[in-house]
Amino acid sequence: MTDAAREMLGIALEQARTGLAEGGIPIGAALFTLDGRLLGAGRNRRVQDDDPATHAETAAFRAAGRRAGYADTVMVTTLAPCWYCSGLIRQFGIGHVVIGEATTFPGAHEWLADAGVHLLVLDDGECAELMRGFVRDHPALWREDIGA
Amino acid sequence: MTDAAREMLGIALEQARTGLAEGGIPIGAALFTLDGRLLGAGRNRRVQDDDPATHAETAAFRAAGRRAGYADTVMVTTLAPCWYCSGLIRQFGIGHVVIGEATTFPGAHEWLADAGVHLLVLDDGECAELMRGFVRDHPALWREDIGA
Repeated sequence: MTDAAREMLGIALEQARTGLAEGGIPIGAALFTLDGRLLGAGRNRRVQDDDPATHAETAAFRAAGRRAGYADTVMVTTLAPCWYCSGLIRQFGIGHVVIGEATTFPGAHEWLADAGVHLLVLDDGECAELMRGFVRDHPALWREDIGA
Repeated sequence: MTDAAREMLGIALEQARTGLAEGGIPIGAALFTLDGRLLGAGRNRRVQDDDPATHAETAAFRAAGRRAGYADTVMVTTLAPCWYCSGLIRQFGIGHVVIGEATTFPGAHEWLADAGVHLLVLDDGECAELMRGFVRDHPALWREDIGA
């Protein structure tokens, strides 16, 4: 599972890097089927679109289009999902979540695990480095994005 | 508070009625300051935009634009918020929630109350009637919208 997960994380990381290059918050996500087919990818769009409602996970979820069910899907995200994105995952019954790193932001993923979601935290160095640099350079923007 | 809340609910209800007239899911929401100034309003857009990520509350939150804090704001919604929208409310620290009705869908608002959010459930007849009619006529669409 870990090799496949790292490959999927690559797609989310590409989104995060693009977001950073755009002057945005470098968090990316992608939704896949369990067998690795990409359904949709996206990134945080607070800065790019002045849109406070589009976190990386909600962007990927939107990009995947409408589906009747999500039990057989995997949400891959560069950063541990906040309450908002964890609520999305729980409400729609997304069965699996792969997290790039959960050190720069604790997220609500233990709440998801308690609700039966399958989690894999990869502790990826590049994901953490992207966020550490961003939080250091733009602390007010980061606080705004998590409502802190 | 109840008179002011009913007036605010009127804005959310107008969104829900517009959604129904568009062939959409009749749930509306609006974000206000505590003293009743409208910041933004919106409605579920699953059908209208083929967008599974825009629930009424997330639409209102987006329409309100970027803010540094939400403790002094009120999210008014015609229907009890699901996990996704409750996660939004909790992550961004929206201090107050007014709910039109919580009978046709239970929502996650007790979880919000436990987290310190101030709640008012109005048990509004028109909100409930809109949802009952919609769920009766479009059960599959409703299940899709709540990931059931």
